[in-house]
Amino acid sequence: MTTKKQAADAVLEAKVRLGLTWAEIADALDAPLAWTTSALLGQHPVPADKAAKAVAILELGDDVAQALRLQPTRGALEEAVPTDPTIYRFYEVLQVYGPTIKELIHEQFGDGIMSAINFKIDVGRREDPGGERVVVTLDGKFLKYQWG
Amino acid sequence: MTTKKQAADAVLEAKVRLGLTWAEIADALDAPLAWTTSALLGQHPVPADKAAKAVAILELGDDVAQALRLQPTRGALEEAVPTDPTIYRFYEVLQVYGPTIKELIHEQFGDGIMSAINFKIDVGRREDPGGERVVVTLDGKFLKYQWG
Amino acid sequence: MTTKKQAADAVLEAKVRLGLTWAEIADALDAPLAWTTSALLGQHPVPADKAAKAVAILELGDDVAQALRLQPTRGALEEAVPTDPTIYRFYEVLQVYGPTIKELIHEQFGDGIMSAINFKIDVGRREDPGGERVVVTLDGKFLKYQWG
Amino acid sequence: MTTKKQAADAVLEAKVRLGLTWAEIADALDAPLAWTTSALLGQHPVPADKAAKAVAILELGDDVAQALRLQPTRGALEEAVPTDPTIYRFYEVLQVYGPTIKELIHEQFGDGIMSAINFKIDVGRREDPGGERVVVTLDGKFLKYQWG
Amino acid sequence: MTTKKQAADAVLEAKVRLGLTWAEIADALDAPLAWTTSALLGQHPVPADKAAKAVAILELGDDVAQALRLQPTRGALEEAVPTDPTIYRFYEVLQVYGPTIKELIHEQFGDGIMSAINFKIDVGRREDPGGERVVVTLDGKFLKYQWG
Amino acid sequence: MTTKKQAADAVLEAKVRLGLTWAEIADALDAPLAWTTSALLGQHPVPADKAAKAVAILELGDDVAQALRLQPTRGALEEAVPTDPTIYRFYEVLQVYGPTIKELIHEQFGDGIMSAINFKIDVGRREDPGGERVVVTLDGKFLKYQWG
Amino acid sequence: MTTKKQAADAVLEAKVRLGLTWAEIADALDAPLAWTTSALLGQHPVPADKAAKAVAILELGDDVAQALRLQPTRGALEEAVPTDPTIYRFYEVLQVYGPTIKELIHEQFGDGIMSAINFKIDVGRREDPGGERVVVTLDGKFLKYQWG
Amino acid sequence: MTTKKQAADAVLEAKVRLGLTWAEIADALDAPLAWTTSALLGQHPVPADKAAKAVAILELGDDVAQALRLQPTRGALEEAVPTDPTIYRFYEVLQVYGPTIKELIHEQFGDGIMSAINFKIDVGRREDPGGERVVVTLDGKFLKYQWG
Amino acid sequence: MTTKKQAADAVLEAKVRLGLTWAEIADALDAPLAWTTSALLGQHPVPADKAAKAVAILELGDDVAQALRLQPTRGALEEAVPTDPTIYRFYEVLQVYGPTIKELIHEQFGDGIMSAINFKIDVGRREDPGGERVVVTLDGKFLKYQWG
Amino acid sequence: MTTKKQAADAVLEAKVRLGLTWAEIADALDAPLAWTTSALLGQHPVPADKAAKAVAILELGDDVAQALRLQPTRGALEEAVPTDPTIYRFYEVLQVYGPTIKELIHEQFGDGIMSAINFKIDVGRREDPGGERVVVTLDGKFLKYQWG
Repeated sequence: MTTKKQAADAVLEAKVRLGLTWAEIADALDAPLAWTTSALLGQHPVPADKAAKAVAILELGDDVAQALRLQPTRGALEEAVPTDPTIYRFYEVLQVYGPTIKELIHEQFGDGIMSAINFKIDVGRREDPGGERVVVTLDGKFLKYQWG
Repeated sequence: MTTKKQAADAVLEAKVRLGLTWAEIADALDAPLAWTTSALLGQHPVPADKAAKAVAILELGDDVAQALRLQPTRGALEEAVPTDPTIYRFYEVLQVYGPTIKELIHEQFGDGIMSAINFKIDVGRREDPGGERVVVTLDGKFLKYQWG
Repeated sequence: MTTKKQAADAVLEAKVRLGLTWAEIADALDAPLAWTTSALLGQHPVPADKAAKAVAILELGDDVAQALRLQPTRGALEEAVPTDPTIYRFYEVLQVYGPTIKELIHEQFGDGIMSAINFKIDVGRREDPGGERVVVTLDGKFLKYQWG
Repeated sequence: MTTKKQAADAVLEAKVRLGLTWAEIADALDAPLAWTTSALLGQHPVPADKAAKAVAILELGDDVAQALRLQPTRGALEEAVPTDPTIYRFYEVLQVYGPTIKELIHEQFGDGIMSAINFKIDVGRREDPGGERVVVTLDGKFLKYQWG
Repeated sequence: MTTKKQAADAVLEAKVRLGLTWAEIADALDAPLAWTTSALLGQHPVPADKAAKAVAILELGDDVAQALRLQPTRGALEEAVPTDPTIYRFYEVLQVYGPTIKELIHEQFGDGIMSAINFKIDVGRREDPGGERVVVTLDGKFLKYQWG
Repeated sequence: MTTKKQAADAVLEAKVRLGLTWAEIADALDAPLAWTTSALLGQHPVPADKAAKAVAILELGDDVAQALRLQPTRGALEEAVPTDPTIYRFYEVLQVYGPTIKELIHEQFGDGIMSAINFKIDVGRREDPGGERVVVTLDGKFLKYQWG
Repeated sequence: MTTKKQAADAVLEAKVRLGLTWAEIADALDAPLAWTTSALLGQHPVPADKAAKAVAILELGDDVAQALRLQPTRGALEEAVPTDPTIYRFYEVLQVYGPTIKELIHEQFGDGIMSAINFKIDVGRREDPGGERVVVTLDGKFLKYQWG
Repeated sequence: MTTKKQAADAVLEAKVRLGLTWAEIADALDAPLAWTTSALLGQHPVPADKAAKAVAILELGDDVAQALRLQPTRGALEEAVPTDPTIYRFYEVLQVYGPTIKELIHEQFGDGIMSAINFKIDVGRREDPGGERVVVTLDGKFLKYQWG
Repeated sequence: MTTKKQAADAVLEAKVRLGLTWAEIADALDAPLAWTTSALLGQHPVPADKAAKAVAILELGDDVAQALRLQPTRGALEEAVPTDPTIYRFYEVLQVYGPTIKELIHEQFGDGIMSAINFKIDVGRREDPGGERVVVTLDGKFLKYQWG
Repeated sequence: MTTKKQAADAVLEAKVRLGLTWAEIADALDAPLAWTTSALLGQHPVPADKAAKAVAILELGDDVAQALRLQPTRGALEEAVPTDPTIYRFYEVLQVYGPTIKELIHEQFGDGIMSAINFKIDVGRREDPGGERVVVTLDGKFLKYQWG
């Protein structure tokens, strides 16, 4: 049996070998860019037709397609605090701005949370006189604390 | 001496007592909303004039103004993994989408990171047929890995 | 300023001193039993009228009422793994049955989670020939993984 | 020797390959749904006849049947705090409502605990105008603190 | 309000000041030795009459009696692994003999556990040619894994 | 080379395959029951003659006998806090009664510890009107704190 | 009540104020140097006459003498891994040479341990052409693993 | 490539198979006993001639000799707190006597540390009327805190 | 697929086998010494031409060259606190001098950080009457805290 | 008694109140800049004359001078992994370049370490066309692994 982790490794290998980008794969699957990336990295179950297309583009076997379709056990960081600098910066944002985000959500919406389930994320680029900027947008439904 | 933590507590108490919102305080300081919130919560040094205005609005003493001006030791979470559900959801986003963000930054920008220093954050609201949505935008300069 | 933790301690002390039960307090507040308990223990903001009634019944001051009304930073366990045997048994249930719950939620509902926000909990009692039984019911809205 | 972990993986693979549900397997074994799921995931020893039936339905070998019969070392989470969102929500419930559950058990039953051994769990579904709801019922014998 | 921890400290101080032993206190309370010790150290709620007797013998106030009567949040070690050598040896026993105890309970009783709730403990002394020996007896009801 | 862990696994497999009990193996080795169990699980070095007898009864090879004879690196729990419920209950005993045991050892013996080296353990069964009881006896030499 | 920690702090303060050395205090108490140091730092109970002499020399009160006489809960490091460089070097020795010490104890003595209870420690100085050297001698009774 | 860990395992296996002691190996290498033990366990690089002699005596291959010569990444304990009782006792010594050692080094030498690099260790035996004793001597150069 | 970790191991093996130094490899690649070392150890992506040269010098295969070119997930320490003494000393520097560095950066540059991305490191040697000295120079761009 | 932590807080308060810089204080003490900073932050004992000068400049009391003279227990980070971004970057350097530093020290000096005791640190500034740069220089004596 091919696990979702092995499938993700196979995807990464094929992507490098074939010189494909995530954007090209997402286009081929007709799916959002970030969803495609996280689904092929094993964090979402992939519908059968998209799994089939993905392995076709990536020249991988049916076992990979089947693994992509499986329900994942989510959670991609190996440690509670990430060590990779690119990922750590987002943990740092949480350390410095976490309570700020909480205060502003409560001020603007009341008692509740931003859903991480009914949720989408986007990574984009903004040109700026001071240099190009990474813009990450988190967009989740507000869920009000509600007793049953 | 009033610490930055004590100053933050005094700000929160005064804000509730006077019925002020962060938006009103930010307007009064003529500063961005999220910066104002995090600075008054102790995560940024506040320039002298803004510190003076803040304590005037909040009817607090000079010791609070002085504390707000101090250089902070940043880091607002008391545990490596936050327990408050509103804040935890952002940690969960990192667990599920961290490697996705990393892949897309590298694909779009090359080897480097999004700065968390030359950086701004915004918390907003978007109406949607499926219910109102929280939109958090992280906007940081791209820093390329560069040897000296 | 009275913190939510100090307010919770004052509530517990008054409750013992006056010989009140959570059921009596919940009746007086006209609110669900478990919600009342967790709100007075500091895990939910209490609406102004209920906070006023609560301090009246418990013969406590206005500062406690104000603390009860504050937005909480949730999370009541002091350690990641609880040591109190009554609470630990529920952590053990998670250790032994967590993946079972996950499998059955996915089988019955698809990819998603049980909300802990749009959620209610109840603790009840069931007589049984083998001895009385504790029945804890967790009842939360199903949230489907949905891309934006 | 096939370990209980390998047996659980084989069960999951066969279940996907054959398109079986936990409900169908539980019916075939004439056993409760959640017990069946957790037992085949390796958290309970399976009686010989049920183990034989299980491998027959799942078209697996005798080594799997033998592994299912073994006494388990229980504990299915790989980290003290689970990262999978579906399982984490139950940990969050413990963080927010743990002391509430403790207070109510003591108020209704006296000093003691809900057993996690003489215990059953059920995962069900309730339709509601606000959307379908997950209902998890924990039902354990009350054990009174008793000195010998 | 006097907490159970403060009450335990007051008991220890009074016991040293008055030169009492746990055995004398247990006799006066007409209660088992180890139960008396752990109850006065804050791990069990003490019935009203015994709490009254205890503070009388120890020449302490009514606030201590009230604290002794409270329902405890149990768990007396401050770290997951104890550092005091007298207590550590029992943790070491668990490290070295834990799986042995598990194997023998299962062999002699089937699938289940020794209850730590319907449970008593005793600490005694045995003379032996090789020197005096500490004998700790753990005596708990066997609880069979039983589905509901 | 066969490690002590592999030898323990081979013992467990053979024991199940041949339908032997620990009591029968201990009889055959003419050794105490708990010692036999822990030694074959890899926590004690086994004398040459007993190792030979053990592999004969269990129909295992000489490599297992040699592994059983090796000096172990002791410590059988994989985490600081055990997750298996049967083993956890003993950790809970330590959490609830650890300081009680310490107080009583010091009261009865003075400043020192119960040895976990000059030590034996026994697991037994006691019938009781309230149901059968597990009785675990820890019996170790008292070691007085003594300066050289 | 003065705790052992407060007594230790009072001793350190008085020692600096009066310009005394540990060697002078040990002489006055007619006790070994390292024992005196660790006992006054709160790791050993001090006999009544020595406690009286100690507070006399250090010009401290009777409450300190009483605290010194109390049975300690041992364990002086605040974290599992010490951060002070002087103490850390001994942890590093354990990291680098721990298994070596274990091998040599087993080779020279058989299966057992060096007691840390029937034990003394000494810190001395040795002149050497390469510079003065710290010599720490650990001297503990060998305890053989012995079943009861 | 043979790693230093694999080389250490091969050494231990050969040593048992050939019935050699560490003392005999150290004699053959004309090197100190404890150095030899720790070097062959992978904590020091072994000079070419000694590595050749070691594999000759132990009847091992050239790959082991090459591994012994490699620069190690030191640190032999798998957990921050060791669980093996023989090694744990030295950690306990640090917990109980760490601050004592620190006080005495500072009193006798001033501000600085005992080097764990310019350092030797010895494990010996001392007969005593009370039974044989393990004597471990740590002997390291004193390094004074010195600014550049 | 060859991972970056496997490529790093292959580089270390080849380097020893061929008797090459990092300085020679850096010369051949016409790249800075420390960059070369960390890039071949897997912490930087290596440009195609340099990767080709590296495997040519080290007599390794194309799979290693491809692995060297991959984008790394950075973070080379296996534990939060390193155990190898050579690496630990730098962690100790952080424990002792971390706040000093922070104070001086803020005094000399204002509120901000030293970049670890636009950054170079150098390890050198300085002769000194007191013995040769290791000089590590960290040289990173100052990044000012700047809101967007 | 004033602790070193309280003295450090008093120094920071006075420094802000009087508008002094570390550079001015270091000049007044005629001591290196980084040494002065870390010593006044409590990481080094301060000689009597410098302690007297420091409290004179900072207009603090004799108790602060006495605290500055005390031998410190070093270690200034409150968590194993620092959360303040300015300090974290140096931990990140260790994560990314730790093994590189180790390799180069061994290549240039042989088996040993850079001392963190016979050690000095400097924080400086370098103008560069790409922006000003922070230059931190670590300069420690090389200590060769040497057996006694």
